[in-house]
Amino acid sequence: MFFEGSEKKAEIIIDAKQISLLDDLAEDFWLALVQCCNAQILSMIENDDCKAFLLSESSLFVWHDRLLILTCGNTRLVHSVQYFIDHIGLNKIQQITYQRKNEYFAHAQLSSFGDDIALLGQNVKGKAYRFGELDGHHNYIFHQDNNFQVSAEDKSYELIAYQICQQASKKLTTVGLISEEIRQFLQLDRLLSGFILDDFVFKPFGYSINAIKGMHYFTIHITPQANSSYVSIQANINLLALIPDFLTILAPKSIDLLSFNEFEFSELTTQYMPKNYISKSLFQQQLSNNYLVCFANYIQPQHTFSQAEALDLKGKQHAL
Amino acid sequence: MFFEGSEKKAEIIIDAKQISLLDDLAEDFWLALVQCCNAQILSMIENDDCKAFLLSESSLFVWHDRLLILTCGNTRLVHSVQYFIDHIGLNKIQQITYQRKNEYFAHAQLSSFGDDIALLGQNVKGKAYRFGELDGHHNYIFHQDNNFQVSAEDKSYELIAYQICQQASKKLTTVGLISEEIRQFLQLDRLLSGFILDDFVFKPFGYSINAIKGMHYFTIHITPQANSSYVSIQANINLLALIPDFLTILAPKSIDLLSFNEFEFSELTTQYMPKNYISKSLFQQQLSNNYLVCFANYIQPQHTFSQAEALDLKGKQHAL
Repeated sequence: MFFEGSEKKAEIIIDAKQISLLDDLAEDFWLALVQCCNAQILSMIENDDCKAFLLSESSLFVWHDRLLILTCGNTRLVHSVQYFIDHIGLNKIQQITYQRKNEYFAHAQLSSFGDDIALLGQNVKGKAYRFGELDGHHNYIFHQDNNFQVSAEDKSYELIAYQICQQASKKLTTVGLISEEIRQFLQLDRLLSGFILDDFVFKPFGYSINAIKGMHYFTIHITPQANSSYVSIQANINLLALIPDFLTILAPKSIDLLSFNEFEFSELTTQYMPKNYISKSLFQQQLSNNYLVCFANYIQPQHTFSQAEALDLKGKQHAL
Repeated sequence: MFFEGSEKKAEIIIDAKQISLLDDLAEDFWLALVQCCNAQILSMIENDDCKAFLLSESSLFVWHDRLLILTCGNTRLVHSVQYFIDHIGLNKIQQITYQRKNEYFAHAQLSSFGDDIALLGQNVKGKAYRFGELDGHHNYIFHQDNNFQVSAEDKSYELIAYQICQQASKKLTTVGLISEEIRQFLQLDRLLSGFILDDFVFKPFGYSINAIKGMHYFTIHITPQANSSYVSIQANINLLALIPDFLTILAPKSIDLLSFNEFEFSELTTQYMPKNYISKSLFQQQLSNNYLVCFANYIQPQHTFSQAEALDLKGKQHAL
């Protein structure tokens, strides 16, 4: 079974003096916004600072002054961003950041990053960068180019695990697995102590969890199938310190780390990355919106031959 | 400037008792065959055993009992294979092997590997494999599944260099560079002593060379531009022994090695791969047509940050 786990991601910061995204917008607005990219709301949790929607394809987090939306699969997230601009107005928007990764199956996507920002660029003047080599893992990041400066305290993190070990893939594709078992496997009750949790097990497999605590968010999305496995862990708490925990459980062949405004990225990765992973890519860029973006891809060197993957020619050839 | 260097490749072995591809087919046949995939013949060299056509997109080699065709860019090579089948007849064909790599810009291709073998599969019963992880460099190989066995002596090799060093990229994108300078830069007169050579410098840049000596072929195709550079070296002489030569000149960030029926792949790569390259992928498979295929991807670990690549939003967004 083929599923594109890699996400598109948008962050939009608004002028909270003009509008509060938490107080001034009805549920219908978010329902319509996620429908624009062909996703659906599955459930919602909230506290005083944040609403977290679990989506059929990933997550939407809303604070008073910003939103963060991640969507995977064959969604076209830029349409949701366009919906937000059309309904809220550019004059209330301070900063839009739009991000997209290399995909497992780029040819099966509805659009490319270039298509997306050509659309976005009709309304928003911006700059775009690629972090990572074209022939390897990489992230495209577009951001609005205006006078707005994000706070140095606006830190966020991504830890993406590719090609998780056979044992983890097998466990996470077990038929009838329930959310408690997955939480236990990932040791989430320990790692997310004090967070409100909201999770969902997809059929036949796949898992999503949103977690919030005050202003903090933490979300995991798992596409567990062997050969195209993808585990995305994203948060505004320091994920670099959790690298050893997750790598012990998932033992992926390859990992991406991405951080916004983590000024000790080098020190922390040196401290926390296990020595059996080798740094394949290392990119850093100060954006004009005041985000310092760091990107690293690590791999596990291979010393023995694997067998080639026999392909099912009668099956879903769009995945090839 | 954007150009997809990565090639599709087809090898077709025929029953030489029924037809000789060298003696029994007129030039028009090859002209029509390459036109089927939107390529053109630029020039030709020949000896008693082999004709080598330099194409606008790569190369075609023809022997009495087989052909090998490589095409890059936005060609659809499977249409040339189909043309061959339609005009020569499946009853004279002993073995078809069709191969395709991961691309820099998969979304900009006219078809995917799945599309290609769906077409091919209408006439040819076959098997297909993927060598390499989906999220990294990989090769798809389809081969006809019949009783035919290739000779253990049918050895061939690919050495693909990605992200060549700045110095090599700069040299090879120099305006007005002539073929003698490129041959000298690549030390080809020394490496290909005794071969008949036929090369072409593309505008604004890009280089192709075919070389033949008896039954032996050797071909290089260079897409030199920074960030999407791709140097493909393919031959039926042992390229593994030439690794140190080419890596010294090109110093790429990443290299793929692929071999057919090289039974000492491990020993030779251990002997010839410089120690500053780390093995990221290592795959091996015995195909039922008697090809032993080995695939390896090596990378240069990165220890210092590179700057992100600033993207030209006014330019060719189809490349993003």
